[in-house]
Amino acid sequence: MVRKLRRLPKVLTKSFRKEYYQQPGTLPGTIIIDEDAEYPTIFLIDYNQTNFIRQQIATPEECVNYLDTESISWVDVQGLGNRDILQSLGNVFDLHPLVLEDVVNMAERPKIEDFDDQLLIIARMVVPKEKTCGFYSEQVSLVLGKNYLLTVQEEPEHDCFEAVRVRIEKGKGIIRKQGTDYLAYALLDAIIDGFFPVLELYGERIEELEEEVIVKPTPQTLQQIYQIRRELLQLRRAIWPQRDAINSLIRDSGELISDEVRIYLRDCYDHVVQVMDMVETYRELASGLMDVYLSAVSNKMNEIMKVLTVVSSIFIPLTFVAGIYGMNFNTEKSPYNMPELNWYWGYPICLALMGVIALGLLFFFWRRGWLSNSVTVKRD
Amino acid sequence: MVRKLRRLPKVLTKSFRKEYYQQPGTLPGTIIIDEDAEYPTIFLIDYNQTNFIRQQIATPEECVNYLDTESISWVDVQGLGNRDILQSLGNVFDLHPLVLEDVVNMAERPKIEDFDDQLLIIARMVVPKEKTCGFYSEQVSLVLGKNYLLTVQEEPEHDCFEAVRVRIEKGKGIIRKQGTDYLAYALLDAIIDGFFPVLELYGERIEELEEEVIVKPTPQTLQQIYQIRRELLQLRRAIWPQRDAINSLIRDSGELISDEVRIYLRDCYDHVVQVMDMVETYRELASGLMDVYLSAVSNKMNEIMKVLTVVSSIFIPLTFVAGIYGMNFNTEKSPYNMPELNWYWGYPICLALMGVIALGLLFFFWRRGWLSNSVTVKRD
Amino acid sequence: MVRKLRRLPKVLTKSFRKEYYQQPGTLPGTIIIDEDAEYPTIFLIDYNQTNFIRQQIATPEECVNYLDTESISWVDVQGLGNRDILQSLGNVFDLHPLVLEDVVNMAERPKIEDFDDQLLIIARMVVPKEKTCGFYSEQVSLVLGKNYLLTVQEEPEHDCFEAVRVRIEKGKGIIRKQGTDYLAYALLDAIIDGFFPVLELYGERIEELEEEVIVKPTPQTLQQIYQIRRELLQLRRAIWPQRDAINSLIRDSGELISDEVRIYLRDCYDHVVQVMDMVETYRELASGLMDVYLSAVSNKMNEIMKVLTVVSSIFIPLTFVAGIYGMNFNTEKSPYNMPELNWYWGYPICLALMGVIALGLLFFFWRRGWLSNSVTVKRD
Amino acid sequence: MVRKLRRLPKVLTKSFRKEYYQQPGTLPGTIIIDEDAEYPTIFLIDYNQTNFIRQQIATPEECVNYLDTESISWVDVQGLGNRDILQSLGNVFDLHPLVLEDVVNMAERPKIEDFDDQLLIIARMVVPKEKTCGFYSEQVSLVLGKNYLLTVQEEPEHDCFEAVRVRIEKGKGIIRKQGTDYLAYALLDAIIDGFFPVLELYGERIEELEEEVIVKPTPQTLQQIYQIRRELLQLRRAIWPQRDAINSLIRDSGELISDEVRIYLRDCYDHVVQVMDMVETYRELASGLMDVYLSAVSNKMNEIMKVLTVVSSIFIPLTFVAGIYGMNFNTEKSPYNMPELNWYWGYPICLALMGVIALGLLFFFWRRGWLSNSVTVKRD
Amino acid sequence: MVRKLRRLPKVLTKSFRKEYYQQPGTLPGTIIIDEDAEYPTIFLIDYNQTNFIRQQIATPEECVNYLDTESISWVDVQGLGNRDILQSLGNVFDLHPLVLEDVVNMAERPKIEDFDDQLLIIARMVVPKEKTCGFYSEQVSLVLGKNYLLTVQEEPEHDCFEAVRVRIEKGKGIIRKQGTDYLAYALLDAIIDGFFPVLELYGERIEELEEEVIVKPTPQTLQQIYQIRRELLQLRRAIWPQRDAINSLIRDSGELISDEVRIYLRDCYDHVVQVMDMVETYRELASGLMDVYLSAVSNKMNEIMKVLTVVSSIFIPLTFVAGIYGMNFNTEKSPYNMPELNWYWGYPICLALMGVIALGLLFFFWRRGWLSNSVTVKRD
Repeated sequence: MVRKLRRLPKVLTKSFRKEYYQQPGTLPGTIIIDEDAEYPTIFLIDYNQTNFIRQQIATPEECVNYLDTESISWVDVQGLGNRDILQSLGNVFDLHPLVLEDVVNMAERPKIEDFDDQLLIIARMVVPKEKTCGFYSEQVSLVLGKNYLLTVQEEPEHDCFEAVRVRIEKGKGIIRKQGTDYLAYALLDAIIDGFFPVLELYGERIEELEEEVIVKPTPQTLQQIYQIRRELLQLRRAIWPQRDAINSLIRDSGELISDEVRIYLRDCYDHVVQVMDMVETYRELASGLMDVYLSAVSNKMNEIMKVLTVVSSIFIPLTFVAGIYGMNFNTEKSPYNMPELNWYWGYPICLALMGVIALGLLFFFWRRGWLSNSVTVKRD
Repeated sequence: MVRKLRRLPKVLTKSFRKEYYQQPGTLPGTIIIDEDAEYPTIFLIDYNQTNFIRQQIATPEECVNYLDTESISWVDVQGLGNRDILQSLGNVFDLHPLVLEDVVNMAERPKIEDFDDQLLIIARMVVPKEKTCGFYSEQVSLVLGKNYLLTVQEEPEHDCFEAVRVRIEKGKGIIRKQGTDYLAYALLDAIIDGFFPVLELYGERIEELEEEVIVKPTPQTLQQIYQIRRELLQLRRAIWPQRDAINSLIRDSGELISDEVRIYLRDCYDHVVQVMDMVETYRELASGLMDVYLSAVSNKMNEIMKVLTVVSSIFIPLTFVAGIYGMNFNTEKSPYNMPELNWYWGYPICLALMGVIALGLLFFFWRRGWLSNSVTVKRD
Repeated sequence: MVRKLRRLPKVLTKSFRKEYYQQPGTLPGTIIIDEDAEYPTIFLIDYNQTNFIRQQIATPEECVNYLDTESISWVDVQGLGNRDILQSLGNVFDLHPLVLEDVVNMAERPKIEDFDDQLLIIARMVVPKEKTCGFYSEQVSLVLGKNYLLTVQEEPEHDCFEAVRVRIEKGKGIIRKQGTDYLAYALLDAIIDGFFPVLELYGERIEELEEEVIVKPTPQTLQQIYQIRRELLQLRRAIWPQRDAINSLIRDSGELISDEVRIYLRDCYDHVVQVMDMVETYRELASGLMDVYLSAVSNKMNEIMKVLTVVSSIFIPLTFVAGIYGMNFNTEKSPYNMPELNWYWGYPICLALMGVIALGLLFFFWRRGWLSNSVTVKRD
Repeated sequence: MVRKLRRLPKVLTKSFRKEYYQQPGTLPGTIIIDEDAEYPTIFLIDYNQTNFIRQQIATPEECVNYLDTESISWVDVQGLGNRDILQSLGNVFDLHPLVLEDVVNMAERPKIEDFDDQLLIIARMVVPKEKTCGFYSEQVSLVLGKNYLLTVQEEPEHDCFEAVRVRIEKGKGIIRKQGTDYLAYALLDAIIDGFFPVLELYGERIEELEEEVIVKPTPQTLQQIYQIRRELLQLRRAIWPQRDAINSLIRDSGELISDEVRIYLRDCYDHVVQVMDMVETYRELASGLMDVYLSAVSNKMNEIMKVLTVVSSIFIPLTFVAGIYGMNFNTEKSPYNMPELNWYWGYPICLALMGVIALGLLFFFWRRGWLSNSVTVKRD
Repeated sequence: MVRKLRRLPKVLTKSFRKEYYQQPGTLPGTIIIDEDAEYPTIFLIDYNQTNFIRQQIATPEECVNYLDTESISWVDVQGLGNRDILQSLGNVFDLHPLVLEDVVNMAERPKIEDFDDQLLIIARMVVPKEKTCGFYSEQVSLVLGKNYLLTVQEEPEHDCFEAVRVRIEKGKGIIRKQGTDYLAYALLDAIIDGFFPVLELYGERIEELEEEVIVKPTPQTLQQIYQIRRELLQLRRAIWPQRDAINSLIRDSGELISDEVRIYLRDCYDHVVQVMDMVETYRELASGLMDVYLSAVSNKMNEIMKVLTVVSSIFIPLTFVAGIYGMNFNTEKSPYNMPELNWYWGYPICLALMGVIALGLLFFFWRRGWLSNSVTVKRD
């Protein structure tokens, strides 16, 4: 008996509930391991203009040797399910306790923290879901050092860095000739560009709803509009701080970012602003759709009421007339008691009267435009 | 059976979907050729105070000689459908890879980029559609050098530069005496002025809807209000960054812009602000119209309900009275069984009773103002 | 058949359509003469502490002699319908082409432009309409020089400077002892003060609507609220840039404005802020009225529905009972066929039954408060 | 016949209409005497650490002697109904014409004006009305000199300075040991603290409306919500500029304010921000109440419609069945003409049929929850 | 008879009413003791790297000796019900009168005040209520000196500092090695982290309401949405100034905060921003829910009206037909008087006619989709 509306996916609140916060009063810098988190997989890519090494390693310690060399080392950790590995990661890269906490805590806001010889970049990556219109949202932390880059991803499943790995391996573009700052830029650019396919899905879905909401608004339509608004709200929360982060990366960051890479970051910044623009546009459209929905429902009600009113207003008076001549006043007792019943033309006159009443009312409704309107809609 | 509502043109989302983004992870600076794009046509105008040359050229290389001279060279590329030509354009004008990408990518936000010896201006031009109230939106990129100006337009069809070409050819105004910065200003001014005719159309359409929404609101009205809001949203997205761009052109740009031209740019800036003002005003009006629409629909419902209520409330009690005297209680079995039926004045009294009831109710409705109102509306 | 709603005056859009923009691509500095514009009338007032001359002149050239003297010359041009006069105005006062364009183009935003030896002030003056609640809006341009002030008004009909002229002529206040900057302040002050009577009309009209919207909301009420919102939007567009203009006049303008006059301009600035405050307040009130209107319409619907429901719910069951005893089952064929019809107390019992049903329903409605409410409203 | 809704008090617009503005073109610095204004009463308090004098004086000239002494003189003028006294006030305190105009014009925005040796503070004081939930709003001007303080109040009736007078007289706190700046602070603090009791009333009234709007929304509720929004708008207009004024008093004012008093003013500033906070909170609550009201009215409508639908939908089909067997087809002419009428069980079967229909419909409505819902509400 | 809606808890207004303000005109620095306040309990914790003392003391004077030592003294006062103790607290810690007032006045906005050798931090702590979804809100004041920290809490019941006390006692983390600034940070961090569990409750409740509002909207749903909005408004008022306070602590505070602690405070600042983000997100969701609620109620109305219209529109015409043949025209007087009654197939033809009418109407409604829709919903 309960109406089966598609349940709202618990996207938003889930991410808050589980991961967002530590118990109040927790020691700052505490690492909390989510028991559902996957075991960390660590990939090492070490390259310079001539050499390229790509391998999976078991523990952070294995990459210590690479870090000391002049070549660029990119250590990519996927999954956060083991405290020891994370701890040794902290040791190997000499991370401040708060950095380690930020990296592990999966619900940080995107931001930049500058620690003189290290630069912490927290970003948020989105990946479109395959079937429905939604997205996975995952935190990516980048720790940028002089000749190494540490990236930490929440889960190994979704990843938007493969294209960058291929570019390094095949030496496409200038990536092999540049430093870690360019690598960080390339990854950030891949993260930002990952928002566009997600937004494309929302564009399509809003377009579908625009038609649905006017032609055939149902409670499901309402639910979908609400859901889109909710998810766009989430996208917005992911992208706004990213803009600030990239902006302060361009302006405030120290010597770890070269001037040449700053030009590229400006391009990246333009893309972030484009994403924000689109999110805001979609939000306004979705909010406008809600208004349209409400009006469309009222319109439907008007049509329903018109039918009821036309039918009732015509037949109720007619029924009254018929009721009059259904009364049983005794015509024999008095010449005033319903003499019409005995008239020769009584019945035809009565029918004619009804016809006149009906036509009069129809004319009244037709002039108001209620009739023609209903008919039109009927014929379409 | 499906109601034939005019389908919403897919203006907004189309431009996003096709052109807005490259595949995530694409190499920065990659040029992507849209297969529907038209083959580039290249026009060269070279002039100084005394000479004027205007010709179509086949490849960018043909204009190399003109670039070296002191005279001002304006190279205008229309259409983006060939990679080689775009690439050689990059070589001839010595464009940074990111500049070339911005120029080719047709969904950039308007902006200014300063590369010391070159100034990249991305602008957005709108052209009103002839029949309906809508507009084509097209990106125009300007690359301003010391004595050359490169402009790249998305399509050859729409163009708002012809008036400027004529002014150069005929030597009207001071354009032949000024440098490339004045030429760039003249083109920007033509782009901005192109927004006014589009806005005029929206002004007229809003005016029509203002009347329609109060006198005769239909679902089509709702749809049109929504569409106007959507298109104004799009105009707004085109004009806001343009303001910032022109503002930073006035304040921040280096030596490529002379002080005299800055005065003209301030005039151009005033026009951008006027456009923004009008867009915001129209947006507020359209948003107010939505409220009015909702209220008007409720008003209509009220009128419908009044008719139903007046008719039903009068005739249902009367029908009940008629029903009473249509009962078949056996008057012969008891003097209490409907003796009225045998009264001499039974029927007239009954009719009189009905008349009294009807008049009483009419009076009740008249005092509430429901009656007079319906009648008024009927007579109009 | 069409309902005669008072047509919305086309205030807003008219001013945009006709005058706002030049054809795109027009030469900057072009003067466009609106064919409906009136022929310019020129008034010259020349005064110093001792002398005062006031005369109408035919062409701008006639005032050249006055401009060179130490005394203050105020040239007031009313009407814009002749190109030659405007052009010679430009020559006499040595105006930059863009200044002349701004002065003639009647839809500029209020602003300040500083040209070292001249200060252009574009302002917007409003004059209340006599009968209806509306206003004429007219652009006034002031060009302030060392010892002259040129003012250009759109039309000769409306003018709010007469009080200032009288003050000069009669030597009231300190105006004869001060320079052109004080004169410009006095005119600006008169322009700003002209907004208050217009706002007073809106205050009164909103007050009337506040009562109307709750006591007796009609579609006309809705239309009027919308119109007020529209006109306040227009006032807002006129007053906001005026604030910025006066502010930059106080802070940024050069030596043409003396420190003493700056104190007076601060007073003028306070008035502009007051006007803005009132406009915003009225806008919020009008927007709140729209909400109230919608609620009031819903309330009316509730009352209508209550009447319908009470009447229908009482009489439909009664009619059913009457219908039962109007059936023609043959009582002679069976003792089970409507024996009630032959009972001695059949009819009274039937009537009593109906009475009980009616009272029961009345009690039900009374407890819900529907009955009492309708009655109350009826009696008021 | 007109519904007696409590008329909206004309608080807002009155203050605008009468006092807000002078006739456009009035000479700056003109003093306009409102004919309803009361005759000014002047109180003088003169004190230092040891002495205290408090007396009423007739004309401003009487206090000249006190102004020259080292002791602090506080001249408090209440009422503005006499031009001569105001003029001589200007002479005695050597006020700039614009200051005098500001002091007399009762609708200035709160602000600070610094005239080197004098500091003009315009503030706005509110006093709760005793019976209804509203407030009187009155302008208070403070002119702070080296060893005197002039305060001008609009009316003698409402006053929130008595507590300060008592503190001076009894020498409570440090007020006798401090200068005029501390006295000005003490008065400003009293003015700001006067907002809290007014806000408390609104808090209570919103709380009452919160219950009313859900349990029993009536048109009066709507009116009250609108009125609260209107009055909060007015409070907001009074308090916002006060914040800016106190802030610039702390930061920008010259030597007339000592550093120690600045600390106290910071406390006062905190209170202003609290008041603003509360006003904004109440505004949001009132705006939310409007939404709730609209929803509650719709809910009521739903309940009404449910009753109508349930009753009509059950009895209309039953009446139809009864109507069938009330037809007069001649059973004797044909065996197909209503043979049911002559059946032995005809009538019972007919009643049973009706019962089945009624139960079926009841079941239908019960499963939809319409029935139970109505019943529940009935029982509460 | 009054509907028993869960009463809104008077959370918001209570805190304002009782504690927010002192009587206008009160001497600044006055301490007002709320008669319901609990008697102050004082705890002293004194520690350095090696020693740790934790004890309850009766009067502030008992801790004087500890304050002079090099070790860090944390004095925690819980409850504000005794004037003498508060006064002697002021003496022992040498507090400015305004500081003491701020500490005792329980409705201050969170803020920072810098008094060179002391730093006053006013913060607001929230504690979730156990059963319902709400929270207790309590002010906490921190006075930070060179080697002491005074904290004053409103009530002893709720406390979020226990975890910090344990950390000090057990020497966990670096807290024993750091100064009072780190201790203050640790407490602030505990206060901010205390917001997350409260927000989690709101996240859950919004999720529940999201389902309820679409599947089964009731007046209670409306009330709950309003209440959540109200409480989130309150949370927002608590957290916004906290952000500003912590921000100015990081940037502006003097030597009492070391650079190392500033890094930790930046982490704390990130958490505040997260809290604000979540509050704003929840506010937007709750506001969207209100729209959905309104639409859902309209949808319900549509369904109700559809049933009424379908039933009425089918049976009212049928009843009219039955009424016709219930008329008593005398068939014997004329062959035109209802000859159908005497036809052989009269009754079957009449029934067939009714069937055709009913089917026609059903078809009409089915094509409009009203029928199928109602049925679908019924079956779910």
